[in-house]
Amino acid sequence: MLLSRIAKTAFSQSSQAARIAAGNHHMGLLRKGFPAAPTYHTWLRDVIASGNGDRSSLLRPADVFRVNSRGIGHTPHFQYPSAEAVQDDLYSGADDARVPGLEPTKAGEKPRVVVLGTGWAGCRFLKGLDTKLYDIVCISPRNHMVFTPLLASTCVGTLEFRSVAEPVSRIQSALSGAPNSYFYLASCTGIDTHKHQVCCESVSSAGLPDEPYHFKVAYDKLVIAAGADPLTFNIRGVKEHAMFLREVQHAQEIRRKLLLNLMLSEAPGISEEEKKRLLHCVVIGGGPTGVEFSGELSDFIMRDVRQRFSHAKDYIQVTLIEASEILSSFDVGLRQYATNHLTKSGVRLVRGVVKEVLPEKILLSDGTCVPYGLLVWSTGVGPSEFVKSLDLPKSPGGRIGVDEWLRVPSVEDVFALGDCAGFLEQTGRPVLPALAQVAEREGKYLANLFNQMGKQNGGRAHCAKDIPLGDPFVYRHLGSLASVGRYKALVDLRQSKDAKGISMAGFVSWFIWRSAYLTRVVSWRNRFYVAVNWATTLVFGRDNSRIG
Amino acid sequence: MLLSRIAKTAFSQSSQAARIAAGNHHMGLLRKGFPAAPTYHTWLRDVIASGNGDRSSLLRPADVFRVNSRGIGHTPHFQYPSAEAVQDDLYSGADDARVPGLEPTKAGEKPRVVVLGTGWAGCRFLKGLDTKLYDIVCISPRNHMVFTPLLASTCVGTLEFRSVAEPVSRIQSALSGAPNSYFYLASCTGIDTHKHQVCCESVSSAGLPDEPYHFKVAYDKLVIAAGADPLTFNIRGVKEHAMFLREVQHAQEIRRKLLLNLMLSEAPGISEEEKKRLLHCVVIGGGPTGVEFSGELSDFIMRDVRQRFSHAKDYIQVTLIEASEILSSFDVGLRQYATNHLTKSGVRLVRGVVKEVLPEKILLSDGTCVPYGLLVWSTGVGPSEFVKSLDLPKSPGGRIGVDEWLRVPSVEDVFALGDCAGFLEQTGRPVLPALAQVAEREGKYLANLFNQMGKQNGGRAHCAKDIPLGDPFVYRHLGSLASVGRYKALVDLRQSKDAKGISMAGFVSWFIWRSAYLTRVVSWRNRFYVAVNWATTLVFGRDNSRIG
Repeated sequence: MLLSRIAKTAFSQSSQAARIAAGNHHMGLLRKGFPAAPTYHTWLRDVIASGNGDRSSLLRPADVFRVNSRGIGHTPHFQYPSAEAVQDDLYSGADDARVPGLEPTKAGEKPRVVVLGTGWAGCRFLKGLDTKLYDIVCISPRNHMVFTPLLASTCVGTLEFRSVAEPVSRIQSALSGAPNSYFYLASCTGIDTHKHQVCCESVSSAGLPDEPYHFKVAYDKLVIAAGADPLTFNIRGVKEHAMFLREVQHAQEIRRKLLLNLMLSEAPGISEEEKKRLLHCVVIGGGPTGVEFSGELSDFIMRDVRQRFSHAKDYIQVTLIEASEILSSFDVGLRQYATNHLTKSGVRLVRGVVKEVLPEKILLSDGTCVPYGLLVWSTGVGPSEFVKSLDLPKSPGGRIGVDEWLRVPSVEDVFALGDCAGFLEQTGRPVLPALAQVAEREGKYLANLFNQMGKQNGGRAHCAKDIPLGDPFVYRHLGSLASVGRYKALVDLRQSKDAKGISMAGFVSWFIWRSAYLTRVVSWRNRFYVAVNWATTLVFGRDNSRIG
Repeated sequence: MLLSRIAKTAFSQSSQAARIAAGNHHMGLLRKGFPAAPTYHTWLRDVIASGNGDRSSLLRPADVFRVNSRGIGHTPHFQYPSAEAVQDDLYSGADDARVPGLEPTKAGEKPRVVVLGTGWAGCRFLKGLDTKLYDIVCISPRNHMVFTPLLASTCVGTLEFRSVAEPVSRIQSALSGAPNSYFYLASCTGIDTHKHQVCCESVSSAGLPDEPYHFKVAYDKLVIAAGADPLTFNIRGVKEHAMFLREVQHAQEIRRKLLLNLMLSEAPGISEEEKKRLLHCVVIGGGPTGVEFSGELSDFIMRDVRQRFSHAKDYIQVTLIEASEILSSFDVGLRQYATNHLTKSGVRLVRGVVKEVLPEKILLSDGTCVPYGLLVWSTGVGPSEFVKSLDLPKSPGGRIGVDEWLRVPSVEDVFALGDCAGFLEQTGRPVLPALAQVAEREGKYLANLFNQMGKQNGGRAHCAKDIPLGDPFVYRHLGSLASVGRYKALVDLRQSKDAKGISMAGFVSWFIWRSAYLTRVVSWRNRFYVAVNWATTLVFGRDNSRIG
């Protein structure tokens, strides 16, 4: 009877306090003031302990944070978690009846696979799953997949935003038409592995009764592909002032800000210093995203700013700040090439560690103060609050721990993949990097594994125990690509950092980069659009309308 | 010495009180509490009267409201004006020195034309102006023109948003490169016709020092093309709950809401009634915009909703509410055709008058209550707050009054055109309808007139008095077009409502409609994109990613 209902953290800009509507249970530990954020974990554990001895299977604090945080959510980047008193009206025992939802599947129905997330892993899994064997329920706060490697290009108008977004209903058509398959625009707020169900909260825009609208979905198999959050290393001011580059709306924000600053800097009476600040674009983090974005920016400046914002051309500057080395996963020769090329393109490379971010300047740990007009933060990703809140085994680094078949051990019928999952220490394997390539490969592997299980009648809950799963997942790195701007890119085809293999840089690499991504774009429609966008950018230059 | 400085109404959602930083003057009527909005006009007139007897030329209450209100601004539609105490620090006499700006042009420099607005009229004028004769300063809160006739198509994904936005720097390249021509992303807050200067406020996003950032621009000639605002007839709830369709971001909002409701309606446990409400799209106003939007919606439902949101297909409904008759300016046969066609396409046509709009339902004056999930308001436009606040002669209907040469009489070197201008009563001409066609023709005419003046050295301030202006502006209506969905459109080539002429409806008309607009799209780039969008929609269907 014990059900972990919905505990959510509403990310609220206006108050620093979290409205945590905590789920409660029949023991009467109810209507109690809720402690401030740092200690609620302990508190929740107490609740669990006092409520029931078996905390691993009955009540999971899974439902404390919702998926809809940075990274895969819609929460603007300046919002952050905070704490407030329990507001949920409480009840005991009979809560199941009150929350609407999808009941467990019955005999005669197809088993139901619930997929959390619509990133690379989730979408590749959705695409590969045999809908003759399974019904699918996909739960995500966004209804499309983002073709992340091309996202940086949309910030400056090389590509249009639509060209990198693929509606999930085109990836898996069952979601739009099959009678028992659904797509829910919602965040998962909790997982009850014992009852085999997930709790969800609809993405809201005052459209539903009883906002926020809660429901639950029973699963036969659960696939967690909820992604990761950008790492901020708890540096003060990052969430408030920096922009990330993980979603289409992030790219839209960056574009709006960039064009705004370009236009504002022309206002009469602006001092030289202020103009320089407004037009100083700072990128933190020298990974592929940071480097590609810097490259795109310098392309944009070289060609479009000179033509269309000629007043700004002597003031605009791109600085890339990295604590160690740029593109550290690439071959040393390629790194050198990238460094030279970026410097030649006018990107200033600075080695430094960010101490604090203020509204108009960055403080580095060596005391330097860097004024900025646009700040893009791309220092990699780490476990999201949702993942942290799940009471599941964890891999080194805090991701959801999985075995070689991407199963989460100790609970049944739960799988995890993509950026939110990592091999458990006891598997003896390293946690794979947070790459689209890894996520996609895992999605493909898991879809096949599910199709095999389904054919052997292992699709239902508690039915896969005795079914041979076949080969474990093995990741073979195909190589890394990164464009550095001005028709140049890096191609590193080594299998790992220390292995030998082909690596090259230059125009041919750039051509390989474009071709490779063009063939990877999911649908023919978007493949066509990406090609058309590239062609028109070549002919007409980039579009610089500022919308919104 | 008397200068009307900046008086602005900050449109603020959080407070119902207007922060009116009132401009003041040397007579010492300073630091005085500011009356609530309804009476400030009277107050301002008092200030003017006490300050100086000659109110027509010295101080104009022009600067009370800014352009950046509904219609051409960025203010979301739920925001509205309100009143608060004067906060501006005050001073007397020497204010000129404090506000940065562009000084009057000097001998040897080209005369400066200041253009307010980037709609059809402003952009056509910009395009036609001879930049060998003039320097141009364009001031507008958006840096692109919207190809409004195709805006309805973007709401459902038939066209992409970019395809209907044309950056102003592509329309008039001098704005991006010529040494003394500028585009300012700002709203005009006031006009001082005596000093020949306008006061401006930068569109803000915490990018500039001293937010809001004010500056002034001296002009030799001023062209007001600031557009109009949607008419709400002071019906309660319209601004808060209805969506308009005048800007690209309005279309984005509508699209987001439509897709959100389509997805939310699938959430488990939603009652039938609630589902119907969520999927009820109501359009108020049966003009071309309302009809075209209804037609696009029904196309979207017929083709895309059935395929991709099959759960919703039996619930979604479009209702068009009009107080009198739809497409009243069209031929009676065409009206009948449109009525039949829309009804056949599933659009419910309701005759009714809206009394009040509540968050989830509309009350009609006959007592009917219409629940809605999406409400689009398109009942035409009227004078904006900015236009109302200008102390210039007015035409019937409250637009800026102009003579046959689009000059504003009684002040020198000021011209007005487009939706914000209308012929004065004494010209004996009717006020022209608020159509793109009218605005564009006026823009073209005025550009020629300016080029003529410029060649005769009449470009400078106070220099055009003795220059013959040539033929007055005469508008000849070329005809009206409206698509009604499903490859059908109306073409009415009569010169006026009562004249005779060709009118036709059906597929050929639809083909004419598409061709006509395709050739009117400003740039080759967008012409290409519109064609590509239409082709891909035909082949792949509409895109349904919900971004943001």
